Amino acid sequence: MSQNIYVGVDVGGTTIKVGICNADGDLLQTYEGPTETSKGTDTILHNIAQYARDIVTESPYEWEQVAGVGVGVAGFLDIPNGIVKFAPNLKIQNVNLKSYLEDKLQVKVLVNNDANVAALGEAWAGAGKGIDNCVCYTLGTGVGGGVIINGKIVEGFAGMAGELGHIAIVPDLEAIQCGCGKMGCLETVSSATGIIKMAKDAVARGDRTTLVSVENIMAKDVIDAAKEGDEVAARIVSRAAYYLGRSMALLSVVLNPECFIIGGGVSKAGEFLFAQIREVYEKYTQNEAKENVKIVAATLGNDAGVVGAAGLILRA
Amino acid sequence: MSQNIYVGVDVGGTTIKVGICNADGDLLQTYEGPTETSKGTDTILHNIAQYARDIVTESPYEWEQVAGVGVGVAGFLDIPNGIVKFAPNLKIQNVNLKSYLEDKLQVKVLVNNDANVAALGEAWAGAGKGIDNCVCYTLGTGVGGGVIINGKIVEGFAGMAGELGHIAIVPDLEAIQCGCGKMGCLETVSSATGIIKMAKDAVARGDRTTLVSVENIMAKDVIDAAKEGDEVAARIVSRAAYYLGRSMALLSVVLNPECFIIGGGVSKAGEFLFAQIREVYEKYTQNEAKENVKIVAATLGNDAGVVGAAGLILRA
Repeated sequence: MSQNIYVGVDVGGTTIKVGICNADGDLLQTYEGPTETSKGTDTILHNIAQYARDIVTESPYEWEQVAGVGVGVAGFLDIPNGIVKFAPNLKIQNVNLKSYLEDKLQVKVLVNNDANVAALGEAWAGAGKGIDNCVCYTLGTGVGGGVIINGKIVEGFAGMAGELGHIAIVPDLEAIQCGCGKMGCLETVSSATGIIKMAKDAVARGDRTTLVSVENIMAKDVIDAAKEGDEVAARIVSRAAYYLGRSMALLSVVLNPECFIIGGGVSKAGEFLFAQIREVYEKYTQNEAKENVKIVAATLGNDAGVVGAAGLILRA
Repeated sequence: MSQNIYVGVDVGGTTIKVGICNADGDLLQTYEGPTETSKGTDTILHNIAQYARDIVTESPYEWEQVAGVGVGVAGFLDIPNGIVKFAPNLKIQNVNLKSYLEDKLQVKVLVNNDANVAALGEAWAGAGKGIDNCVCYTLGTGVGGGVIINGKIVEGFAGMAGELGHIAIVPDLEAIQCGCGKMGCLETVSSATGIIKMAKDAVARGDRTTLVSVENIMAKDVIDAAKEGDEVAARIVSRAAYYLGRSMALLSVVLNPECFIIGGGVSKAGEFLFAQIREVYEKYTQNEAKENVKIVAATLGNDAGVVGAAGLILRA
């Protein structure tokens, strides 16, 4: 028989992405189809199985080469049993996705949450390629994350490991409430939502800034204004960077990873953001814990989910 | 051949403790001899090998049953290579302890730092028995720690994982400098040294307290005064408990361990301290991340080091 292949499925609210990887994490083939969330759970499950089968059928590979299918889903999961307890964007509740797919596809299936899976993708075949211990941040609507130790996702007792957005890093005196109900979570300052909120607050209180039409403002607008020298916007971006750097300093004495990988929309701010994060990290991290530790941008972009899902089979 | 046995060695500045464990982590035999630090590196190395051999010779077990020897040392180590880069209390520098012992004993040897090893002992055969993911704190002169994921010590890129005493948890406005040079480390408030310093400061500035002869005060004196209702002492202990609880809240969204284990001299404060830590943890931790998570006292006491060292062989 020829080489093993690994199928990854990234289930989003609108589209389901599938991909085929080899044992090195190279993405050999991809396909994308509609999730059809509005048609309900049965259709969604059927589509996942269908697309996973189709991509192999329409590829130069044989189904017999498939070593397993990994699936990434946003939501609350019972990871060991592959049960989706609640996936708000799919409106799915208490579905055993693992046993459904294993029954339909007759191959090993592993399910994990989207942030963990994206982190594994980057660690396996992206910015962390060749590195066994890393921590990944995804700076998007919220701040997601994943912790990879010895090449594997750290899932935690209730699947709550890697919830880096909820590290309470902002001191009480300047903390605001997070969507989770707690105060001072990292995502209140370092997510796109946090950046937008800080910009709106600044405009509402009359700060002198070039940010004016804040109704539909995006994090990118704030970052662009900061790059162009707007002091208010610059402070907002610095604050996002500061607490990211502080959280990394902290994780360095807990896990001492070789690499921090940052992806998601906000990370597109590029070196402007990264330089500030590194400066804070440098200042607040113990010498031994920061030596040769890298803070780098994710490289797989939207493919991280599919690649990481495929990687579940090798790295479980 | 009969069952495998595992030899653990806990190298301290004054005494070297050795022990024999079975595969369940039961301590079958122990022995303790002088380190003879003042006689220099050669004597120390010789003693380690001698005691490890003697304990087996004088036991009902055969040397052939020894699956390996694990060694815990306080200091800066190159863990994968078993090199003691610098052990201040032993005055040892750049010694390949692993290869020395493997040569002398003709058996697999693994070396790790004392805090990691004690954590592994508790996780394997102490308060964490049966639990694969836990975080251990040792509240002594400093705050040591160890992170156990999937039953194994997380060592980190440069062996700096589990340095929980250096989590920068105290907000800048009330932070003091740690021995490591950074500000606001957990051990500035939650170690015996931190508690003593806070008591001395309180007396020096004239706080009204029953703590008077602070020259040779111990952390236990402060804890006892707190238990008896001294408000100043109570505040000091609460502060130690508060930042411990906050650090656990934080680690729960990063690693979501099943259990936090607290050992070391300060932990002897017992339920008085633990109740306060749990209250803070309960308040600051996300619901899903704290569900059924336990905060418990270490159970192996001074044997944790020997047991954990033996465990290195099984859990590496």
